Amino acid sequence: INSKSPHLSSSAKLTHAALCLECLVRVRCVMGSLMGMEWYCFATLGVLTAFLSFLMDLSVAKLLRAHQWLYSQLEGHCLLQFLCWTLYPVSLSALSTSFSQSICPFSAGSGVPEVRTILSGVDMPHYLSLTNLFAKYVGLICTLAAGSTVFLGKVGPFVHLSTMVGAYLNQLCTVLRGEKEERTEGAMLVVAAAVGVASCFGAPISGVLFSVEVMSSHFALKDYCPCFFAAACGALTFHLLSMWSGEQETLQALFQTSFSDDLPFYPLEIPVFAILGLLCGAGSCIYLFCHRWILLFIKTNKILIKVLSTEKALYSAMVVFLLASVTFPLSAGQYMASKLTIKQLLSSLLDSRQWTSQSHNASMVLQPNLCPWSEWISSGNPYLTLGFFLFMKLWMLVLACTLPLPAGYFMPVFIYGAAIGRLFGEGLAYVSLNVVYLDQNRNPINPGGYALAGAAAFSGAVTHTLSPALLALELTGQSTHAAPILLATLVANALARSGQRPSFYDALSISKKLPHLPSLLKVCPRLSSVPIGKVLGPRGPVLERAAGPTEVQQVLNTCSQTQIPVVDTLGDLSLLLGVLKLTRCHILFLNMTYHYFIFQVLKKQLVDMCSIQPVSVQLSPDTTVQEVRSLRRHSLVICVGVWCQYKASLRLSWTCVSFICQ
Amino acid sequence: INSKSPHLSSSAKLTHAALCLECLVRVRCVMGSLMGMEWYCFATLGVLTAFLSFLMDLSVAKLLRAHQWLYSQLEGHCLLQFLCWTLYPVSLSALSTSFSQSICPFSAGSGVPEVRTILSGVDMPHYLSLTNLFAKYVGLICTLAAGSTVFLGKVGPFVHLSTMVGAYLNQLCTVLRGEKEERTEGAMLVVAAAVGVASCFGAPISGVLFSVEVMSSHFALKDYCPCFFAAACGALTFHLLSMWSGEQETLQALFQTSFSDDLPFYPLEIPVFAILGLLCGAGSCIYLFCHRWILLFIKTNKILIKVLSTEKALYSAMVVFLLASVTFPLSAGQYMASKLTIKQLLSSLLDSRQWTSQSHNASMVLQPNLCPWSEWISSGNPYLTLGFFLFMKLWMLVLACTLPLPAGYFMPVFIYGAAIGRLFGEGLAYVSLNVVYLDQNRNPINPGGYALAGAAAFSGAVTHTLSPALLALELTGQSTHAAPILLATLVANALARSGQRPSFYDALSISKKLPHLPSLLKVCPRLSSVPIGKVLGPRGPVLERAAGPTEVQQVLNTCSQTQIPVVDTLGDLSLLLGVLKLTRCHILFLNMTYHYFIFQVLKKQLVDMCSIQPVSVQLSPDTTVQEVRSLRRHSLVICVGVWCQYKASLRLSWTCVSFICQ
Repeated sequence: INSKSPHLSSSAKLTHAALCLECLVRVRCVMGSLMGMEWYCFATLGVLTAFLSFLMDLSVAKLLRAHQWLYSQLEGHCLLQFLCWTLYPVSLSALSTSFSQSICPFSAGSGVPEVRTILSGVDMPHYLSLTNLFAKYVGLICTLAAGSTVFLGKVGPFVHLSTMVGAYLNQLCTVLRGEKEERTEGAMLVVAAAVGVASCFGAPISGVLFSVEVMSSHFALKDYCPCFFAAACGALTFHLLSMWSGEQETLQALFQTSFSDDLPFYPLEIPVFAILGLLCGAGSCIYLFCHRWILLFIKTNKILIKVLSTEKALYSAMVVFLLASVTFPLSAGQYMASKLTIKQLLSSLLDSRQWTSQSHNASMVLQPNLCPWSEWISSGNPYLTLGFFLFMKLWMLVLACTLPLPAGYFMPVFIYGAAIGRLFGEGLAYVSLNVVYLDQNRNPINPGGYALAGAAAFSGAVTHTLSPALLALELTGQSTHAAPILLATLVANALARSGQRPSFYDALSISKKLPHLPSLLKVCPRLSSVPIGKVLGPRGPVLERAAGPTEVQQVLNTCSQTQIPVVDTLGDLSLLLGVLKLTRCHILFLNMTYHYFIFQVLKKQLVDMCSIQPVSVQLSPDTTVQEVRSLRRHSLVICVGVWCQYKASLRLSWTCVSFICQ
Repeated sequence: INSKSPHLSSSAKLTHAALCLECLVRVRCVMGSLMGMEWYCFATLGVLTAFLSFLMDLSVAKLLRAHQWLYSQLEGHCLLQFLCWTLYPVSLSALSTSFSQSICPFSAGSGVPEVRTILSGVDMPHYLSLTNLFAKYVGLICTLAAGSTVFLGKVGPFVHLSTMVGAYLNQLCTVLRGEKEERTEGAMLVVAAAVGVASCFGAPISGVLFSVEVMSSHFALKDYCPCFFAAACGALTFHLLSMWSGEQETLQALFQTSFSDDLPFYPLEIPVFAILGLLCGAGSCIYLFCHRWILLFIKTNKILIKVLSTEKALYSAMVVFLLASVTFPLSAGQYMASKLTIKQLLSSLLDSRQWTSQSHNASMVLQPNLCPWSEWISSGNPYLTLGFFLFMKLWMLVLACTLPLPAGYFMPVFIYGAAIGRLFGEGLAYVSLNVVYLDQNRNPINPGGYALAGAAAFSGAVTHTLSPALLALELTGQSTHAAPILLATLVANALARSGQRPSFYDALSISKKLPHLPSLLKVCPRLSSVPIGKVLGPRGPVLERAAGPTEVQQVLNTCSQTQIPVVDTLGDLSLLLGVLKLTRCHILFLNMTYHYFIFQVLKKQLVDMCSIQPVSVQLSPDTTVQEVRSLRRHSLVICVGVWCQYKASLRLSWTCVSFICQ
């Protein structure tokens, strides 16, 4: 029988469907006997995300090469070159903005603050839809293809993309298991966040740690193994794909460095690394202050509010045109190595050879393959170039953060830190050779090590995390510098976290008014000692034990909740007996009972008619926010006296919180 | 005035005391303004533990060298050599046993199960005393000095030692801050556990991760920074001390390897690493089965019970004599490289050069510095030596675990895994060269990489953790093999965790009858769905709202608790009003009131006389163990209906649990 025949009888169709179903069930049994269904989902999640990441890298590389080719073809025509340099990123970022905004307005920005909020238990279904996945993916390719002019990264959006893939896979997994409840959604999203970072860089361990640090305030160890499993799958797939595409001969770090192994640094350099950490911490404070200022500015400036609410693409185009004009290689761009792509910037900064001692060797400079930092020294003095780069990129980066398009902010910060470290390291190497006259036979000071430490310390301080230290090691495969890098990151973090300043993501959460409690607590520590009774919204309907049919009917008519608290007497609301769980048919039945047997039931009480389920965990309205926070996410429904019912996390109404914070 | 003068007047003494106090306060102010007092404690903890670790390594190295010297001096006298070989470890382990048992019997064993239990909220003050610290430290030096004959490590005891130092520092910190409450004890102990591992190996990151994985089922992110800070301090101090003592020229990994960087492994080797992971997982299952069997055997065999209860030192001496006789280099020991110390064993196994291809080169074998594995091939066939080593060490290791002396079990397991990996890798290298005839110009297969992966996978599977993968990288400074090592560890863990088998530490916890819930849940998953009402002990006294003085008096006379639950009516115990907090003087006052004003108060009710404090978190007896577990450790006092009150963790009475588990 030709199964595609339109004349197929309905019974045959049914047989086919049953056969398919049977096959599916059998496959599920065989797979399920090997390991739980969710592990296949975790593996699929890792592989899919890595595939998305690889595909994005490939398309971005092609788009960047097209721009470089066009620019080089126009050599000699200064105006045409300027137009090519500026209009290419302008059109790409305008496209990115309009595309993502028209398909799904939630796809703009990094996505990390939203994912954090979702992971803390708040439902935000729009942020996990498939249209958002599509809009964010295409938009991000355009943003990245705009290159080092716009200077934005892909980590944050990839965490978001991976979470969307995870949510979708979780639905699939639930269907495959034939269950109705979505058992593992929490675990799946935590794992997805880890996979996002891991498959961005092929760095599984730091991926997991970064997501743990950024995403949660508490980490359940039962998610630990799934996280590492999925992250390892993602990282392996990412590496294998780049190997098969011919980029790498074997699995190796993305920015493989070759620092000297026998004496990577002198022990006396350890305090110097701590000083670099302090510098990076101070730098991060300045950067975060500027970032907070501009977030406030675009919220309060009337012109900007108007432009950003109606003409988002125009705003993007204008800002990117400004950025591109500044970085034009024939004007100021030559003093800030603007011809290098983001990847080239990082690998040139991490090179172990000293720039200054090589800058006189003209033959090497002509071969960019041997000497990736030639762009930095082409204008003469690398110190000035680095300083100018740091000064210009600070405001350019802050400005770029306001663009309403899908973009990540981690990688730019990482590179900025590497530039700080490089400047510091180059200066130190110069001083050690030309002022202190170190023994020439011994290993010279390696400025690349300082660049690596600076990158980890600065990005760690900006995001208030320590895992960039490990990420720096995994990205470069350079384990010799583990101790000084960790030290610098710790010192920078200590400085950045002092004085209750919010981190980069906290500032975004607060600016976007997301109900994310840890961010709020950072800005307003007083909140932790406030009783929840004062913060939560008004209480819903309550029934008393002895409620008659009339009261029950009234409550049923007014409320839309599925659970109603039942108390002993309405006089003392703290004596909670349990909850009355209502299903749709339950309500109908109650209504019918009421209408038809009104005389019979009139004297019956609530306790006689319905079973009241006890509440497993009960809070009093006097419990402070801090105490409620210390209850775990995945605990069951909690009743706060009879004030309000909520699932898992504490959802504060924003007005209340603002009231307390004032 | 000479301050030491015995004739000093009391007023002058007072002035001195006041001056000292003022100085102390001023120092505290200056230090406190820079960072919180607890951070100094964390740093001190790291430095102190690293110092202890370094001192131990130094003494152990000296003791081992003395033994080697003595043994080499007796060359030619076979019997004397045998006596030297056996009696030295026998006397050391007998000394270790009798010393630790006589000073503090709690100091025997690894200490990790006890620290886990303490961290989960159970008070075990004997395990954190200073005498225990002393007994464990000295005992551990003796154990380690017995060398590779006894084949025990130092990680576990160091976690315990570090926790004791941490608890002591916490008391000091509390006094310095002038507070009465020990605010940070929980945090301090968590940090101390991380520092223990970090300062053992100078591996800060994996130290923190290992302690997180082994110690807790949930990790609070606020402990994350302190953990890394203290671990970094510890690791840095450890490295600096070994540098200043002349062991290392600069900071480098403890077992620095030099694998080839350009092509560390072929991509096709990745599935082979997964197969090695499977092998290690299977091996770990056998090892854990033997371990559980011997734990049960020494608990049930009547002779052993008698010997172990009275003659612990004799038992140790007998077992170690057996082990030493077997490893005597002139008998079976020559086939298991028994002359190598534990450190030499590991570095020889991790060497990147292939043993078999070098074994014909006699000149290298004569120079043990160039060729650390010469002991392995001295008997001829390295495969047979490795196989014999694996077979013998399995039962020897299981037997050594029963010794009642301070000892760690992680390092032996790590080395055992390295031997499995080495045998696998050597076999593969032989096959690839002599059977498949790989291109001779390309890099040969590196058996050291397999040894490293095997070590991580086997120790990870035995302890049910993933962090040994990171530890292997940090111990060797070898980041090229990150992906395959993580893969092997994941596969081994998947096999070891399947089928609800307890990990090594879980088995110890259960055998020692420690109230550690996660271990219990692993053995008896049914426990998680049991209502706590069934598991907890009988309920204490309860007062009702309208209780008169007589009832109050009765309850006060019978109970020793400081908090008494107050319910609405005794008829329904689930309607909890709050708790009555009693202090000593409160009780006295109530008693007095009762005796003197008996007529006046006779008609008064409890609610009129005392303030009843509401309970912030309330559980019903129907709440399952799983739900209670999901409430966090540091939450406040929780009342389970009126069944029982407990602080923080769930303390189950053992009889109840055994009842459920049957």
